[in-house]
Amino acid sequence: MASGSLDFYYEFASPYSYLAACRIASLAELADVRVNWKPFLLGPIFAAQGYTSSPFNVYPLKGAHMWRDLDRLASAQRLPPITRPATFPANGLLAARVAIHLNDACRPAFTRALFSAEFAQGRDISDRETVRQVLAGLGHFWDEVIADAESEVNKARLRAQTEEAQARGVFGAPTFFTADGELFWGNDRLEMALEHARRLARAA
Amino acid sequence: MASGSLDFYYEFASPYSYLAACRIASLAELADVRVNWKPFLLGPIFAAQGYTSSPFNVYPLKGAHMWRDLDRLASAQRLPPITRPATFPANGLLAARVAIHLNDACRPAFTRALFSAEFAQGRDISDRETVRQVLAGLGHFWDEVIADAESEVNKARLRAQTEEAQARGVFGAPTFFTADGELFWGNDRLEMALEHARRLARAA
Repeated sequence: MASGSLDFYYEFASPYSYLAACRIASLAELADVRVNWKPFLLGPIFAAQGYTSSPFNVYPLKGAHMWRDLDRLASAQRLPPITRPATFPANGLLAARVAIHLNDACRPAFTRALFSAEFAQGRDISDRETVRQVLAGLGHFWDEVIADAESEVNKARLRAQTEEAQARGVFGAPTFFTADGELFWGNDRLEMALEHARRLARAA
Repeated sequence: MASGSLDFYYEFASPYSYLAACRIASLAELADVRVNWKPFLLGPIFAAQGYTSSPFNVYPLKGAHMWRDLDRLASAQRLPPITRPATFPANGLLAARVAIHLNDACRPAFTRALFSAEFAQGRDISDRETVRQVLAGLGHFWDEVIADAESEVNKARLRAQTEEAQARGVFGAPTFFTADGELFWGNDRLEMALEHARRLARAA
């Protein structure tokens, strides 16, 4: 029986992407689904929809509920309590460049560690020192990784992945796509997306 | 052991309120939680947030995803396929007035039947004939019920319930409150809200 596959588009400023990143690997393994970790930037996509900031800032009641909801979900997932970073949404440009530069084997661990620095420790991920320390903690030569991540070639890769997300109809994060192009929006739809991926693989 | 309780605020134009209305009674019974069915109007609450229409119309990509998401969720809940009413969001004023006028024993069945006319049959719930037929199907004297629902006293009840929702921080539908005032937004949070209500009742 063939394994399923799932594209996982995430943005480093997005707390629901954090929750999804922390649970997708184990859930996908149980479903026999391979995950393609795809960092992208939500900024240009939000801007195209007419947002001037995160919807959670534009609609304050929704934002207040989001932080409470995150507390409850983090607790249910047995994650450390959420610590709000000073700036929300954070600028995740450097983090996304590093994540897309790392190879498929290293990207998930970096992604989880960076998200954890942001939402469990409340650190500023736009600060190069934060990114350096996360890379160091994972055993990477941080200065080389960051230099490569900021090469023109790699910058173009992130732009292309963001354009690809937009072209596929992504409007928020996290977003999942199964092999048949079906779009699932939000951490709450991860189980349904995996189930659909599994069914497709079985039928193949 | 005391039973738990849960306030269930719903709006007749809201398809996620429909999904919640169709499953809340059985889930609440399993959790030994009593549900207070509270119809209200989202229009004034959206207007206060600066929306000019449903967010699902304001953000078309989000709207397109919503209809696809509803198809998948309706199928998972073993409900008939979603049929989009011609106008979205529908004007649910008359339906909400009737629902709040009916007593606690009759409100859930009317709510489910009205929602079903709207989202399973695609009927126009702002049409008095639709409301009449739903009432007739449930064995009510429809003309009397509608006349009472449109009395000044009952209109004021709906206004008061909408103001109450707004004062409690409701910003979308469905919204659930447990006895300790904790707010849970969205059909996706129904299980979590019921679990919290059950835990509160146990601890009491």
